Amino acid sequence: MPILLKNGRVVTADSDAVCDILVEGEIIAALGRNLPANGAEVIDCTGKIVVPGGIDPHVHLEMPFMGTFSSDTYETGTRAALHGGTTTVIDFILQKQGHSLRSALEEWQGRATGNAVGDYGFHMAVTNFNPGTKEEIKEIMAEGITSFKTFMAYKGALMIDDAQMVGLMAEVKKHGGLVTAHATNGDLIDTLVAQHRAQGLLTPLYHYRSQPEVTEAEASGRFADIANYTGVQAYIVHLTCEGALNQVRRATERNQRVLVETCIQYLLLDASRYEDAAKGAQVVMSPPLREKKDQATLWAGINQGLVNVLGTDHCPFMWEQKLLGKEDFSKIPNGHPAVEHRVELLFSEGVNKGRITLNKFVEITSTNAAKIFGMFPRKGTISIGADADLVIIDPNKTHIISAATHHMNCDYSAYEGWELTGKVDTVLLRGKVAIDAGKAKVGRGYGQFIRRGKPNF
Amino acid sequence: MPILLKNGRVVTADSDAVCDILVEGEIIAALGRNLPANGAEVIDCTGKIVVPGGIDPHVHLEMPFMGTFSSDTYETGTRAALHGGTTTVIDFILQKQGHSLRSALEEWQGRATGNAVGDYGFHMAVTNFNPGTKEEIKEIMAEGITSFKTFMAYKGALMIDDAQMVGLMAEVKKHGGLVTAHATNGDLIDTLVAQHRAQGLLTPLYHYRSQPEVTEAEASGRFADIANYTGVQAYIVHLTCEGALNQVRRATERNQRVLVETCIQYLLLDASRYEDAAKGAQVVMSPPLREKKDQATLWAGINQGLVNVLGTDHCPFMWEQKLLGKEDFSKIPNGHPAVEHRVELLFSEGVNKGRITLNKFVEITSTNAAKIFGMFPRKGTISIGADADLVIIDPNKTHIISAATHHMNCDYSAYEGWELTGKVDTVLLRGKVAIDAGKAKVGRGYGQFIRRGKPNF
Amino acid sequence: MPILLKNGRVVTADSDAVCDILVEGEIIAALGRNLPANGAEVIDCTGKIVVPGGIDPHVHLEMPFMGTFSSDTYETGTRAALHGGTTTVIDFILQKQGHSLRSALEEWQGRATGNAVGDYGFHMAVTNFNPGTKEEIKEIMAEGITSFKTFMAYKGALMIDDAQMVGLMAEVKKHGGLVTAHATNGDLIDTLVAQHRAQGLLTPLYHYRSQPEVTEAEASGRFADIANYTGVQAYIVHLTCEGALNQVRRATERNQRVLVETCIQYLLLDASRYEDAAKGAQVVMSPPLREKKDQATLWAGINQGLVNVLGTDHCPFMWEQKLLGKEDFSKIPNGHPAVEHRVELLFSEGVNKGRITLNKFVEITSTNAAKIFGMFPRKGTISIGADADLVIIDPNKTHIISAATHHMNCDYSAYEGWELTGKVDTVLLRGKVAIDAGKAKVGRGYGQFIRRGKPNF
Amino acid sequence: MPILLKNGRVVTADSDAVCDILVEGEIIAALGRNLPANGAEVIDCTGKIVVPGGIDPHVHLEMPFMGTFSSDTYETGTRAALHGGTTTVIDFILQKQGHSLRSALEEWQGRATGNAVGDYGFHMAVTNFNPGTKEEIKEIMAEGITSFKTFMAYKGALMIDDAQMVGLMAEVKKHGGLVTAHATNGDLIDTLVAQHRAQGLLTPLYHYRSQPEVTEAEASGRFADIANYTGVQAYIVHLTCEGALNQVRRATERNQRVLVETCIQYLLLDASRYEDAAKGAQVVMSPPLREKKDQATLWAGINQGLVNVLGTDHCPFMWEQKLLGKEDFSKIPNGHPAVEHRVELLFSEGVNKGRITLNKFVEITSTNAAKIFGMFPRKGTISIGADADLVIIDPNKTHIISAATHHMNCDYSAYEGWELTGKVDTVLLRGKVAIDAGKAKVGRGYGQFIRRGKPNF
Repeated sequence: MPILLKNGRVVTADSDAVCDILVEGEIIAALGRNLPANGAEVIDCTGKIVVPGGIDPHVHLEMPFMGTFSSDTYETGTRAALHGGTTTVIDFILQKQGHSLRSALEEWQGRATGNAVGDYGFHMAVTNFNPGTKEEIKEIMAEGITSFKTFMAYKGALMIDDAQMVGLMAEVKKHGGLVTAHATNGDLIDTLVAQHRAQGLLTPLYHYRSQPEVTEAEASGRFADIANYTGVQAYIVHLTCEGALNQVRRATERNQRVLVETCIQYLLLDASRYEDAAKGAQVVMSPPLREKKDQATLWAGINQGLVNVLGTDHCPFMWEQKLLGKEDFSKIPNGHPAVEHRVELLFSEGVNKGRITLNKFVEITSTNAAKIFGMFPRKGTISIGADADLVIIDPNKTHIISAATHHMNCDYSAYEGWELTGKVDTVLLRGKVAIDAGKAKVGRGYGQFIRRGKPNF
Repeated sequence: MPILLKNGRVVTADSDAVCDILVEGEIIAALGRNLPANGAEVIDCTGKIVVPGGIDPHVHLEMPFMGTFSSDTYETGTRAALHGGTTTVIDFILQKQGHSLRSALEEWQGRATGNAVGDYGFHMAVTNFNPGTKEEIKEIMAEGITSFKTFMAYKGALMIDDAQMVGLMAEVKKHGGLVTAHATNGDLIDTLVAQHRAQGLLTPLYHYRSQPEVTEAEASGRFADIANYTGVQAYIVHLTCEGALNQVRRATERNQRVLVETCIQYLLLDASRYEDAAKGAQVVMSPPLREKKDQATLWAGINQGLVNVLGTDHCPFMWEQKLLGKEDFSKIPNGHPAVEHRVELLFSEGVNKGRITLNKFVEITSTNAAKIFGMFPRKGTISIGADADLVIIDPNKTHIISAATHHMNCDYSAYEGWELTGKVDTVLLRGKVAIDAGKAKVGRGYGQFIRRGKPNF
Repeated sequence: MPILLKNGRVVTADSDAVCDILVEGEIIAALGRNLPANGAEVIDCTGKIVVPGGIDPHVHLEMPFMGTFSSDTYETGTRAALHGGTTTVIDFILQKQGHSLRSALEEWQGRATGNAVGDYGFHMAVTNFNPGTKEEIKEIMAEGITSFKTFMAYKGALMIDDAQMVGLMAEVKKHGGLVTAHATNGDLIDTLVAQHRAQGLLTPLYHYRSQPEVTEAEASGRFADIANYTGVQAYIVHLTCEGALNQVRRATERNQRVLVETCIQYLLLDASRYEDAAKGAQVVMSPPLREKKDQATLWAGINQGLVNVLGTDHCPFMWEQKLLGKEDFSKIPNGHPAVEHRVELLFSEGVNKGRITLNKFVEITSTNAAKIFGMFPRKGTISIGADADLVIIDPNKTHIISAATHHMNCDYSAYEGWELTGKVDTVLLRGKVAIDAGKAKVGRGYGQFIRRGKPNF
Repeated sequence: MPILLKNGRVVTADSDAVCDILVEGEIIAALGRNLPANGAEVIDCTGKIVVPGGIDPHVHLEMPFMGTFSSDTYETGTRAALHGGTTTVIDFILQKQGHSLRSALEEWQGRATGNAVGDYGFHMAVTNFNPGTKEEIKEIMAEGITSFKTFMAYKGALMIDDAQMVGLMAEVKKHGGLVTAHATNGDLIDTLVAQHRAQGLLTPLYHYRSQPEVTEAEASGRFADIANYTGVQAYIVHLTCEGALNQVRRATERNQRVLVETCIQYLLLDASRYEDAAKGAQVVMSPPLREKKDQATLWAGINQGLVNVLGTDHCPFMWEQKLLGKEDFSKIPNGHPAVEHRVELLFSEGVNKGRITLNKFVEITSTNAAKIFGMFPRKGTISIGADADLVIIDPNKTHIISAATHHMNCDYSAYEGWELTGKVDTVLLRGKVAIDAGKAKVGRGYGQFIRRGKPNF
């Protein structure tokens, strides 16, 4: 049955109009005023804001890491995402060093296929670039996986050296793909971690102190340098700080563009959280939370057009899992639950507080990711023929974040007790009401794998 | 009668869809596939690209300058703009030093009202900031003129000093407006002009040599510095070169955003033109054309999101007028005809040659200007309720630019003989077909003054 | 009678040796160990440090300013300088706008000739560059005045505009001289002063708040830009802050060298002084004292080799004169007494506290100024044939600064009560003991005018 | 027998005087005019320039490398150095990965002790930093080896990773030493080398193309970043290009000082040499020669005070050795003969051509190296008690460089046929005439190992 969204304030990155949206099948069929219902299910959007479904390009579902798995499965993770207005996520496949990309793809497909509630795509993390991997790049792109992640940290597990980096970049460039980086200097971090451990400095605070700004600034500059040399399109994931963004800014002076993603937590939370030895583990992630001056830099970067995308690095672990590092910060599984609240947090803290415009809000929560990651114009906008991924936000409704009520499979929240203004009411995914009044209306298996094209940004 | 655009590829800054557009009255009423004609005039757009009407925020029509007037009136200028897909222009009112802003507004209204064919707005150039002018700022904003232009050159005529600059910025900030600048160091330029004249170096080449890159880089940095101190939203008009853009890039490191406009000629033409003593006067403008490295910088700046808007600084003078400076470059009226071809040139040289995406093309020819200059979402996009300013481009049609065929009141063209791919076929302005198959369908007086709101970018 | 300095630790910018120094007539005749006395007066320097006579290139003696005169005459000022180990000062001649350089020179000669106790030179401040002034540049250089000062502030009195600046630079470059600048944006400062006065904000704190960092950073960048264009050798006087030094640092990237002078007070005092409404006037000077982060920048700049010279901007006014501005900061005569303690302060706070080496201490208090200002190798070093300007410092002797005991004609000191380690014991000027055990041994008229050559640095 | 140098123009970094120098034993005993001969051997220096003995802090004598040894022994290398006015060299001990620093020291001592003609010191290259190495740092410093070299290239042989780098820096800082770096990104270079070889691009030109500017710029930035974090005093050896120096310049903005050495060949030769496939191998070294714009940057850097030291990276190989790489650039032993002509080349091309002052010439060929490497004031200056290392230059004598006449053990010269103005006539080392009229007067074993102290700069 068609669905007619009536009288919403329909906002995209480049439009803002009160009108109706007619959804037929999986797609948007018409936009107009006073469109006839003609038997469609009508959703009254008067007083509401309708935006394109959110895209979170940085999540880790059921990821094997540090001897355990992140606690959201494809089912629970994408469902929680939908609750918060994120209709598509992009997860990271991690090549096992010594194994093929294909085998990693199959492992991830094994966990994802048939299990997702919301739509999802994959990035391919190349942790071992060699002649064999090189051959696979083209083939992986043909699978609709057009972005290749690199780690400049986690030596011995995920990190590649600069030789592999330059090789990968050259190959990806040849095929028109994108190279992304977790840009922190693993060697420096490992040394500091070892030092702190040797000194018996084991609380979560030392997780933070083991990753000072320079570790991220240096690697961001190096990544940009190598990318500039190869000419590949480059993207830094979860950039957190002034030092790192300044490397991107300076790279503009040689006419380079480095795309930048930050995450909602880096805009809103800061490193003072680590001083709480008991609860600091909740926000142990890499890179860590930073300082207030870094928050200011990131907000400015968004408005400067230099921070392009907002993700979450959603990678939850149950408190019990976090306790693996109770005695030693280096054993705390890195990550936190975030995918559900990215959109609402940015709306409340960004738009409502006047830091960004409503159009910019859509741009960084959805449109830019769709363009950069090759899903545009199917995703990321509200236009005829696009997937009817629609989020209806009640801009004035207040609500309180709590682990007791959120849908992520995680028993705490870094935002516990925060009151937000602006709540996702209803979410459509490919033409179906997926969330309504806080209830999921679609189930496991509804989510589809999105084959992505080349970057178009 | 309604108009139905059928089957075009409708492209905005954030969408790209084959669909129909229904226009009713002055606005866009519906978007969809297979919309019923219901008696509407049907325009078949199959195989065509439909984009929002272009906005050129930098034109000078019938402007009194250097003892003469620019040769396009509001009628001829806005009509020529329409021919090339630009449905709205923003002209500059120039306060006369010693007189009020109000009196300048009235003078400009006297020339514009009832004469324009296309829509137009005004910037207010403040050439004399004093307690009286200060009082007028709020009032001018209430007239829908929300951007205030400053000249850092043309001492004794248009230039304000830094004391006036900081005063103006503080006042404009208070009212939420925008301050723009012709950012070149007038003192340096005047000195070099005098030097060249004293040495008998009088050809157009010395117009160029009197405005070296440093004159623009220095002033751009100074403008950014002062703006940063006051916190006002700042915008540099017709930025041309690496040195100047680098000032904007460096300003990002202190979390400042300086908005940037370049003009089509700075992307496509270079200073080698001045070597032709006979015809160099055609491209005598300020700032002058620059070097190839500067073109590269500007294209990069567009893709970096740091060059936000494309204008023309359209300010044509007949060849006879240009000959006022036959013996002395400093007497050549500055400016050239450009408003007509901005959109087609960028389409042909930018989009077709793969330098920018089609969405970026719309963004910098229309959407960003609409947002920055307070006309969004009425202008700058294709959405329900927006003005039906629509440009239908045949992407494959080739055509040749010539003064013999262009519609600007100017007897030469800097692009004479250039063959472009991609031609504006049909243009709608507020729901009326304004241009069809090379003919203007609306006449003098159809164009309206657009009251603009505050920047929303 | 020859003088033999026995067994001192003789330190220059590039040497450090325990030896004897034989002085014959006005010059240094020999260096060696166990030099025979041969009837010379022997000064035992065992345990002492002997350095070249200090050069303070930035003083204002008996300067007409703000309706009064700085309170040290050539006699009292140069004598006080000698007491503190500064054997040569360079004062500023101020052209009167509308008058010739020659007439200003004569006025200054009138005050100086026959009155100085220590040696002195002149800079020529060009406050009005015009065809007449242009003609005089060469002639002034022939007088041994090879550095030309410009003011980018004090509009209507001392300030020149950028047109004059570029003209002056071109002319000075032609003759191989140096252009220096008081690099602050006068327009901005005047505006802020007017604003504060209009708001009734009249305490010394508002002197500081009227000259924020941007006023100096902007002007420093502009001065560097114009100098780079002309190719003249450029020097910024009394640079105080990070923003300004960063302009110099950035200019290095285009292969430019901009020489930098800071003053002792900017290294040691900070803006918190202005919070004392009663005594703040003591340190009202332009630029004002800055923040602790700026002190850190300046110390670093010295060690980076980018801050070349340490001066004082000595320009004392009696407290009674300062009270002219009791009700209005803008009427407080700008300046403070400093010439006497520059060397001892830097020794105590710089060398003793490990911030700089002893060689660097000599370099920035003496040698670099000698080279830059064309007095080398006659001044600025300890070598055969050089002027026997020698300062014997007892490195361990402590003493307390006080207006009650200093020799400057000023009834307060910004350093009142500071205890320093390291005291100037004995000073020779051109072969004569000028200061001994706190007593002046040479009198009015002993000081000579030093004709300076071109920069040699 | 004492030696009396009569009437030379004695020039140091901070003095310039015509005088006599009396040498007694190994040291300088007196400076003066008309010093009595008293039985001393008199060397008439009238019309000559006398400067401190040159210090070349970057040579590789008899170094095992790429399966062979550099062709100058301690005897031939230091003798050749003396011929050209360099009285002290600092060679690099290379730790063998997996072995102790001590064992490397002993190996080098085995080759050097008793063999050198001129004085020499050692840097210790740490190629494997581990707990054992860490323990040795203090001990090595106690041996008078206070500078620790790192390689960021030559993976598997000399390169350390960033973890070792940060560890080494922390340890060296603790003991007050200096860390130096061959700052090029080995991973990138190795990749490019492999690529070129795979493509059959095997001429010397591809040595150059395998080490593009980015490889040096990136590593220089990274080295500076890590050093800044640790606070260690850092020094980049053989810096060659704009990109790398700009990293140092930018580091100044965070108040860091990074010391910089360049080598004479980077000032005077450029990459066009590699186009000669037959002779290009002569100048195969790492980093390679660069472009003219880089030469301009380095000259500017010297005058900006940011390039502190001039070395040679003297590492000669006979042409027969170079032919090991006849078929494959990657097998050409890296290095070239240079130690003999550094001083004369800089005098002729730098001083005589007006690029630098005579004082600056001394500063970068001798004084700064002495200070930075802890040999000051014994070396690097002409002062009482300093080693009588003196170089008498005939400033007007012309001579032609040729492998046929030079004293280095190498059968070609990159400067073959160059005519220089200014020739080293006579050289004293620790009070003995070491070179006179082109003849060596001291022999094998005269050269001493110089125990160095901590940096004092």
